[in-house]
Amino acid sequence: MAVYTEVTNAALEAFLGAYDVGRVLSFKGIAGGVENTNYLLGTETGQYILTLYEKRVAEEDLPFFVGLMDHLSAAGFPCPKPIRNRQGQALARLEDRAAAMVSFLDGVEVTRPQPAHCFAAGETMARLHAMASNFTIFRANGLSPKAWPALKNSAIEQADTVEDGMAALMKDALHEAQQHWPTAIPSGVIHADFFKDNVFFLNNSLSGVIDFYFACNDFLAYDLAVALNAWCFDKTLTFQPELANALVQGYQSIRPLEEAEINALPVLARGAALRFLLTRINDWLNVPEGALVIPHDPKQFSARLRYLRTIQSPQDLGAA
Amino acid sequence: MAVYTEVTNAALEAFLGAYDVGRVLSFKGIAGGVENTNYLLGTETGQYILTLYEKRVAEEDLPFFVGLMDHLSAAGFPCPKPIRNRQGQALARLEDRAAAMVSFLDGVEVTRPQPAHCFAAGETMARLHAMASNFTIFRANGLSPKAWPALKNSAIEQADTVEDGMAALMKDALHEAQQHWPTAIPSGVIHADFFKDNVFFLNNSLSGVIDFYFACNDFLAYDLAVALNAWCFDKTLTFQPELANALVQGYQSIRPLEEAEINALPVLARGAALRFLLTRINDWLNVPEGALVIPHDPKQFSARLRYLRTIQSPQDLGAA
Repeated sequence: MAVYTEVTNAALEAFLGAYDVGRVLSFKGIAGGVENTNYLLGTETGQYILTLYEKRVAEEDLPFFVGLMDHLSAAGFPCPKPIRNRQGQALARLEDRAAAMVSFLDGVEVTRPQPAHCFAAGETMARLHAMASNFTIFRANGLSPKAWPALKNSAIEQADTVEDGMAALMKDALHEAQQHWPTAIPSGVIHADFFKDNVFFLNNSLSGVIDFYFACNDFLAYDLAVALNAWCFDKTLTFQPELANALVQGYQSIRPLEEAEINALPVLARGAALRFLLTRINDWLNVPEGALVIPHDPKQFSARLRYLRTIQSPQDLGAA
Repeated sequence: MAVYTEVTNAALEAFLGAYDVGRVLSFKGIAGGVENTNYLLGTETGQYILTLYEKRVAEEDLPFFVGLMDHLSAAGFPCPKPIRNRQGQALARLEDRAAAMVSFLDGVEVTRPQPAHCFAAGETMARLHAMASNFTIFRANGLSPKAWPALKNSAIEQADTVEDGMAALMKDALHEAQQHWPTAIPSGVIHADFFKDNVFFLNNSLSGVIDFYFACNDFLAYDLAVALNAWCFDKTLTFQPELANALVQGYQSIRPLEEAEINALPVLARGAALRFLLTRINDWLNVPEGALVIPHDPKQFSARLRYLRTIQSPQDLGAA
């Protein structure tokens, strides 16, 4: 939750002068968003989200992120639509940062999902995969298993100070991923951060998906594995099989999984838990001076990972 | 900038069930607000600010704060209007906290005020003083000079670690306030936190005043002294006489200051600088574990205080 960059009136007016969105009525920093600064901007023509990209987002990736939202929203997917200025550009500069304005999506996060929410989430993820299949820009996953050894190494020495047994858990899980990660299952553009706070509902209907700043090309089933971690554990971190069933069924109602994907789901789910454990433990151990955010607790993912290491088959994750 | 309290869908629905504001369309935590948790709530009937009162705000003060906004908005003052539920209550409970919903005000903070903005700010402050004069609840200023010795004592030992000479500055300024604080100038309800980020403008017209959570009964001219600190120093903390002239003239265009108030303005302005220096240095030296906010830099107010100690007369503050 952070506003890293303050925007002066003069800078905002200069920026908006290039857009046809009318005059500013309100401008408020939004809490939430670990990577970027987000403002809710109200103008005579409506509400927008104005994002200033901070240093953790590589500028060369912005055409992928903004292009993907443009591609998906044009196809009818419920995601923010980038607003173009009169030069036709969806990316501009504000307060010495790359910045983009997107449409505002109504809807709220579902804090305690029911099976119907998970079904809709799965369905919508499969639609995203289908609609992005003809998107032409490629972006490698910077947080794929290739990136994990370095993340493990930088945290391993202090890992047991965070939780007993954390170092061994990370080591074992990384070893398993390296041995058993699939190689020949369908790939494409994935969201890669399909958490509950990135999916909005309105009157129990899914109304929008936001935050495409981890989107990349990777195994489609890995996206589902991330969502199994994000949607199917309750507040006490107890796995909820009926939520997993609904999520996977929703996905398969649009795109049936291949047998190899189903078989890979347990290792992908453990890998997804490890990926979030690794980034979180590194953030946890390296809170920068003057940080504006409390890092997410890595123990939220060591608990998931420990559970996922006990499952016997894809059926235990709702895949059949 | 903080969301201290997360609100579940179920809790929000239960809360809103008592109000006639229609269904929820959006709900976003707002960055900013050191004391409370603020959400921007969009519903079928419009936009609202939903505030959850955190522990730094005393619950027994809430009827004053909410009552004052109610009183002022009914009188036509541009401040948030508390929304009442069907039981007629403007204060309710949400996630185990006192909570209130108020109308959303359009407008944005002016980051670099011009004299015309300061004139409007002064004018609006004087209107607030006039309109609040028949408000019947009383609230003592918890941060009046009586509170300063304890704040000084708790920070004095470490003060010079923040800035060379800080301890002596605090001691000398407190001594002066104790010797020369006025006793017989007009009192009433004041805002007491009339900073730029609490005053909104729309197309260069003042459109709203927010954040009444320091409002209290005290000397009216002390409110102006706070605003002289807040509005009349530029980004480099250089005093801008033309902004001070405009602020005081704007105030006097509605309510001329008495001679005793004018004479007291320098000591009040130094006292206001000291009050913010004292709270900020205490926050700075006592950042709690897991803080969600960076404390404001106390040096912003030691610089103001040092300058204000050099002025010769009320004329130097724009008062004539």
